[in-house]
Amino acid sequence: VSASADQRHPEARGDAAVVAVIGVGLIGGSIGLAARERLGAEVRGHDPDRGALEAAARLGVIDVACDALEDALDGADVAFVAAPVGTLPHVVDAVLAHAPPGCVVTDAGSVKRGVVSGRDDERFVGGHPLAGAETAGVEHARADLFDGATWYLTPTEGTSGVLYDRLQRTIAGLGARPTAIDAGEHDLLMATVSHLPHVLANVLVTEAAQALGRAGDGRERLPATGPSFRDATRVAGANTAIWTDIYLANRDALMRRIDDAVTRLGEVRAALERGDASAIAEWNDGAREDRRRLLEVGIAGGPVHELRVSLPNRPGVVAQVALELGRAAVNIEDMALYPAADMTSGVIALFVRGDDDARRAEELVAGLDFPVVRA
Amino acid sequence: VSASADQRHPEARGDAAVVAVIGVGLIGGSIGLAARERLGAEVRGHDPDRGALEAAARLGVIDVACDALEDALDGADVAFVAAPVGTLPHVVDAVLAHAPPGCVVTDAGSVKRGVVSGRDDERFVGGHPLAGAETAGVEHARADLFDGATWYLTPTEGTSGVLYDRLQRTIAGLGARPTAIDAGEHDLLMATVSHLPHVLANVLVTEAAQALGRAGDGRERLPATGPSFRDATRVAGANTAIWTDIYLANRDALMRRIDDAVTRLGEVRAALERGDASAIAEWNDGAREDRRRLLEVGIAGGPVHELRVSLPNRPGVVAQVALELGRAAVNIEDMALYPAADMTSGVIALFVRGDDDARRAEELVAGLDFPVVRA
Repeated sequence: VSASADQRHPEARGDAAVVAVIGVGLIGGSIGLAARERLGAEVRGHDPDRGALEAAARLGVIDVACDALEDALDGADVAFVAAPVGTLPHVVDAVLAHAPPGCVVTDAGSVKRGVVSGRDDERFVGGHPLAGAETAGVEHARADLFDGATWYLTPTEGTSGVLYDRLQRTIAGLGARPTAIDAGEHDLLMATVSHLPHVLANVLVTEAAQALGRAGDGRERLPATGPSFRDATRVAGANTAIWTDIYLANRDALMRRIDDAVTRLGEVRAALERGDASAIAEWNDGAREDRRRLLEVGIAGGPVHELRVSLPNRPGVVAQVALELGRAAVNIEDMALYPAADMTSGVIALFVRGDDDARRAEELVAGLDFPVVRA
Repeated sequence: VSASADQRHPEARGDAAVVAVIGVGLIGGSIGLAARERLGAEVRGHDPDRGALEAAARLGVIDVACDALEDALDGADVAFVAAPVGTLPHVVDAVLAHAPPGCVVTDAGSVKRGVVSGRDDERFVGGHPLAGAETAGVEHARADLFDGATWYLTPTEGTSGVLYDRLQRTIAGLGARPTAIDAGEHDLLMATVSHLPHVLANVLVTEAAQALGRAGDGRERLPATGPSFRDATRVAGANTAIWTDIYLANRDALMRRIDDAVTRLGEVRAALERGDASAIAEWNDGAREDRRRLLEVGIAGGPVHELRVSLPNRPGVVAQVALELGRAAVNIEDMALYPAADMTSGVIALFVRGDDDARRAEELVAGLDFPVVRA
């Protein structure tokens, strides 16, 4: 635990007084803006693209433009790495090499195993904000980009509880909803709900273009259709530089999802070939029911409950609690960690909205054998 | 050509003074409302579901509720059959058997070959309005349901030009954009831009439910995701009664589309397995370009041009002209047919919006060797 963390802890937000943003595109720039406006932080930026760095300074996205990575990290409490997925492991290593001992380092990549696994520095926590990427570039940065957005964090057993706590509160301060998830589970989830849908959208448009295109007459405009094709293909051909990296970084999980989709298509095809109306009807009813269950929105409102959990002094317990709640889709609205003076144990306060989620959180934490009380 | 058609022709709309609606659900009910409100027609309704028929009368969707099909068709100028796709061939045959000689009969089914092929009555024209089906039932009927919507019509060589002309104008009067298309092309188009997207949406949700579901803990709520999964699966599990019919009625075309999708998925998978970044990038760039071309919206505005086309007196020429323009995505805003007194030839006036589309229409019609002039 660094001097800077101890010094300011436990005042919320105050412990992210200096924020480093490495990579000032849409995401990094929006982090910078939100950190300046909402946390009152001093934001130090670095980007290998000098034009982007200058634009960030000119637009007020960062306070200080640093040509050298070391300068951006000087005195930083939190460092955000917003670099392309393909270069993340390399950039994160460089940041960890130059960041102060008490600085928590996170990234914003859409695939997590590659950057998380084998990187056992207690200061590093993988991250992934689920926020817009359709208009790239610092000129589109907005302080409110993360408002209400889920921001996945992938702590591991090796993660410092104090630093995780600081990162969780910093991200909540940016307006997002930090949610802990295991890196492997995250990548499976994204393969299923994001990467495969992108692949299928691409398949749909290329198939339509070939089936319907009338080469040579110069008028390949699609005949009028309902809105469903537009919706289903909205993400087709997303930013190639970003998505080639994502597809390849998560290719193991994505190939399994593709195989599964092909199997399922084969089953539907067989039912069609048999003219099996009852199989088709059952499959369609099942899909409706699956979607209802998957997308059913929990009751978002309700009072905020504070749970106080006593934690033993051993590595990874904060991550363990956060991951357990993340797995059950119980959102931690806020978090505060109070280490005992002798550091042999500590208490973590978890703020959870809604009676059901609070009860559920209490059960889950108790299930981990940590004493828990409602404050 | 019936007395009733001759008598009122060529006054637009006035030749749909009596409209029969067979099947008064959402679509039939909305046709009834629009025909009453916008065409000033007398609407006679029939439905095997007595409750629906009574509701339609009570809601003012129809003027007259007829228990017998024959009564609904008595004196009708236009008959709309809005029955489930599976029963359409049977119901259309019954309607043709009872409809007056000069009555144009159309349907509203989402698949067209099954009902069009082999049904060579000159009074029948297949139809398919691209308008909402998410809230079924006459109580959701709205006079503006078809405003601006494409309404496909599938005339054949055997279709009466006079009756096609009347139907085209009636449908434009309901607020829709009638567009001629070959029945087989229609079904291929729908397999590609609607039925396959529905299948893929079902596959996505069932796959996600199985990959992410945690059986037993009673909390299968999907972890937070961006909006793309919601968009991509919006049509999953659409009305089973309607969609089982649609999938089966178009199964030949749909199976070919599924096979094509499986082939394309295999290609992407192979590129992922090879770690072939340039193949992935090229595929993704191609998808973006395909989507841009497919969904690029033509300039909708501009002045309306009237083209006058001289037509020989032989069957199917009106359908031929309409299909040629439909194929090129040139929309006919309105149409009027003026048969010569001796019926050896006629002139059709086509109203087309925009300079480009008018020029294109002129070329296409000239290409069919029919004399054409701008009025």
